[in-house]
Amino acid sequence: MNVSDIFSHDYFMRQAINEAQTAFAKDEVPIGAVIVFNNKIIARAHNLVETLNDPTAHAEMQAITSATNAIGGKYLDNCILYVTVEPCPMCAAACFWAQTGTLVYGASDEKRGFTVISEKLLHPKTLIIKDVLKDEAAELMIEFFKQKRK
Amino acid sequence: MNVSDIFSHDYFMRQAINEAQTAFAKDEVPIGAVIVFNNKIIARAHNLVETLNDPTAHAEMQAITSATNAIGGKYLDNCILYVTVEPCPMCAAACFWAQTGTLVYGASDEKRGFTVISEKLLHPKTLIIKDVLKDEAAELMIEFFKQKRK
Repeated sequence: MNVSDIFSHDYFMRQAINEAQTAFAKDEVPIGAVIVFNNKIIARAHNLVETLNDPTAHAEMQAITSATNAIGGKYLDNCILYVTVEPCPMCAAACFWAQTGTLVYGASDEKRGFTVISEKLLHPKTLIIKDVLKDEAAELMIEFFKQKRK
Repeated sequence: MNVSDIFSHDYFMRQAINEAQTAFAKDEVPIGAVIVFNNKIIARAHNLVETLNDPTAHAEMQAITSATNAIGGKYLDNCILYVTVEPCPMCAAACFWAQTGTLVYGASDEKRGFTVISEKLLHPKTLIIKDVLKDEAAELMIEFFKQKRK
């Protein structure tokens, strides 16, 4: 196994899924994110909207704040943001301001994803890779909302 | 002078302009916001993107986090958000999540305002009032960028 196998999109997305599972355990909508710079995770976060009573506390928002803090600059153009579910318009627009280099996401969100509004919410230079471990990411969401309806 | 004169949109927008002036003094893009509940300001904030090295630290984002913290709930449906300049898509979508009751803004932003992308970024129930003290809000922005170009 070589380095490129270890540090694959699947590898980092699994770390994001771990974050989503932590959110699930806190009764939060299970979405997780990590941000990677030079094959190193510089930020990890999960949704904390209910815990913090803060509608802006999405996984991506916290990860972006944390990563820019780690880097000491406001741009993430050399970073990859992994998130388990397609970002909402707020998070996509935050990626825009950070000029995020690459956005990798798992499951699509046909109701609240940014693509429902416009792909122009992202920065034109941001590379998009989707469907990475999408079934696992989607399964967490489906299970969460199934339990909520009980 | 009665209470409705004192607690007018102009009155609260002036408080937001005060915040924008504080941002200007910190060499930040001069945008300020306040959030009002029952004629009382429950959050004040100004842009801190450069100070915090955080692309998400727009005035509205901080004000929403602060206001939901003050209220102890994630919705601002009974609140009015005043901001000196038209919100960007990130901040408009944050207003969506908070189900902001009323959005009052001053100057339009023809380049980065949310209406450039879509008015659907806001919650369908949010009432929009614009152009409040727009000349003063715009003047601060014009003066800031004029100094930047020197």
